[in-house]
Amino acid sequence: MFAAVMYGPRDVRYEKVDDPKILKPTDAIIKLSATCICGSDLWPYRGLQPQDGPKNMGHEYCGVVVEVGSEVRNIRPGQFVVGSFCLSDNTCPHCRFGFHSSCQQIEYMTGAQAPYARVPLADGTLVPMNEMPDAEMIPHMLAASDVLGTGWYAADAAQVREGNTVVVVGDGAVGLMGVLAASQMGAGRIIAMSRHKGRQKLAREFGATEIVEERGEEGIARIMELTNGVGAESVLECVGMADSMRQAMGACRPGGTIGYVGVPHGVTFDGQQMFFAQKRMLGGPAPVRRFLPDLMNRVMQGKIAPGKVFDLVLPISEVAEGYRAMDERRAIKTMLRVEE
Amino acid sequence: MFAAVMYGPRDVRYEKVDDPKILKPTDAIIKLSATCICGSDLWPYRGLQPQDGPKNMGHEYCGVVVEVGSEVRNIRPGQFVVGSFCLSDNTCPHCRFGFHSSCQQIEYMTGAQAPYARVPLADGTLVPMNEMPDAEMIPHMLAASDVLGTGWYAADAAQVREGNTVVVVGDGAVGLMGVLAASQMGAGRIIAMSRHKGRQKLAREFGATEIVEERGEEGIARIMELTNGVGAESVLECVGMADSMRQAMGACRPGGTIGYVGVPHGVTFDGQQMFFAQKRMLGGPAPVRRFLPDLMNRVMQGKIAPGKVFDLVLPISEVAEGYRAMDERRAIKTMLRVEE
Repeated sequence: MFAAVMYGPRDVRYEKVDDPKILKPTDAIIKLSATCICGSDLWPYRGLQPQDGPKNMGHEYCGVVVEVGSEVRNIRPGQFVVGSFCLSDNTCPHCRFGFHSSCQQIEYMTGAQAPYARVPLADGTLVPMNEMPDAEMIPHMLAASDVLGTGWYAADAAQVREGNTVVVVGDGAVGLMGVLAASQMGAGRIIAMSRHKGRQKLAREFGATEIVEERGEEGIARIMELTNGVGAESVLECVGMADSMRQAMGACRPGGTIGYVGVPHGVTFDGQQMFFAQKRMLGGPAPVRRFLPDLMNRVMQGKIAPGKVFDLVLPISEVAEGYRAMDERRAIKTMLRVEE
Repeated sequence: MFAAVMYGPRDVRYEKVDDPKILKPTDAIIKLSATCICGSDLWPYRGLQPQDGPKNMGHEYCGVVVEVGSEVRNIRPGQFVVGSFCLSDNTCPHCRFGFHSSCQQIEYMTGAQAPYARVPLADGTLVPMNEMPDAEMIPHMLAASDVLGTGWYAADAAQVREGNTVVVVGDGAVGLMGVLAASQMGAGRIIAMSRHKGRQKLAREFGATEIVEERGEEGIARIMELTNGVGAESVLECVGMADSMRQAMGACRPGGTIGYVGVPHGVTFDGQQMFFAQKRMLGGPAPVRRFLPDLMNRVMQGKIAPGKVFDLVLPISEVAEGYRAMDERRAIKTMLRVEE
């Protein structure tokens, strides 16, 4: 088959690779219904994350099972499934505690920017559906796999509650999904920090009640103005840079909570500053598997349409352009069609 | 009157100072029933915290009101009261949110190692009792003012719940109170990290179910052994050093929570490490005022006897020896008698 391979910074090729095979009895092979490019794929694309040799890219996926290993019990060929970028057994103590992204057997998905992919730990990782979703549901199901699940975790980690004031730092795809999650959780006010008109519009569609265009100290001052000098109960940090983390800290009220899901790059904390700031913090790779059944239900019931976050759709053969468009911020998120 | 004044590292004197006076209409003057020395007083005592000029020491207190300012409404002369080291108005948004230690009018108590003290923001800070407690209740009431309230906050911040496995890092007075708090909150297992026989004994009296003597990597390995490789749901960090924080991080399970109440000295966090460790964290100066009415009730009902943490009692004239004994770890915590 042909698939997306990253050779190094700004060098993504669509080329012939080996077809995926069952390597362990707990694996499954799926035929992807669609796939996409993640914001985190841009770290190596921009040379900000070292990489040894060519890498089969892609960790967001949904599709139809075509083959399962001999020990797979819960998943059958022919089923439509969605999985998470964290492969997890769903039975270890960390999974049972809801932290599948710290599974004792954890592996990270790769090779999903392709028409077929191998999914290890299939029983624990994949959530099957009873029926085949309609074609228009595919983008929403695909979003559940990572970007929605990660935004959802940001809101969950930030302890968003009914009526809360929520600030979302970052207007990328994850930030926008954070807005959607906070809205579904019943937040009273959702302030999205964004200076891009198109993203502001989408944020409002997903449930943002206010937009703050200012950044840094000015952004914090504006949040304080909007909250009578108090700050927000819940802040979702969806970027991972030092500036965005400072903004999140400044926007959060004492005793409030910051959920941070942007992988920190160049972020450090001084213990004493953190102590006196007195903000609750929880971050990490999202345990999407915990949320998946609920998210898939919300999609099927038409309660949420997270697939709107894909504002560029390309055939997978044009994957290189998909990366470029996201790198240059011409696209929020690129979906790749994989029909052969 | 005579009171304790710190002139610099290892130089605490009991000497004549001005009697406290009402300076603002919201002040009260109290006659102390007893006072004590805090672990945090040892930071400047050891020269680890700069100080400009002599300072009237002491921020833990309980006693009888002798005078109130013209705007004080809830407190009357003759009442027995307990207050916190954080002076707070109890009406601002941060106080109403339970974070009195971030009160919009916050001041820090000082000058309580003395027979009389001025308490600013008396209405918000002081919790009065309807009756005068018996003499044997005084140490317990005094403990509620800071050391118990701080240990309680550590357990609250660490989200201790019924049945939880809890690790307490630090066997100082605050750590021991953390054990007591976790026990009152219904923790299933309380593992105290301590290598001092006397403190281990007290920890067991306060509710510790297990003791771990090892420290550092060995200490973490022992906790992992005791928890089947999982770690604890809740960890109380009651020291504030880089080593103890590392220990707390290592003892906590992914998705678990660290409550840290030792003021961090020389502690920094790498954002990416913190992210992948995936521990919830909340620290800060304890909002003792939130807990005070409940803690005073528990004392009066005989449910808790936190005053046992005072293992040295001296007349206030011997305050210098009280500091020495704590500095040399001969005493866990020194209570000072203030009868004139």
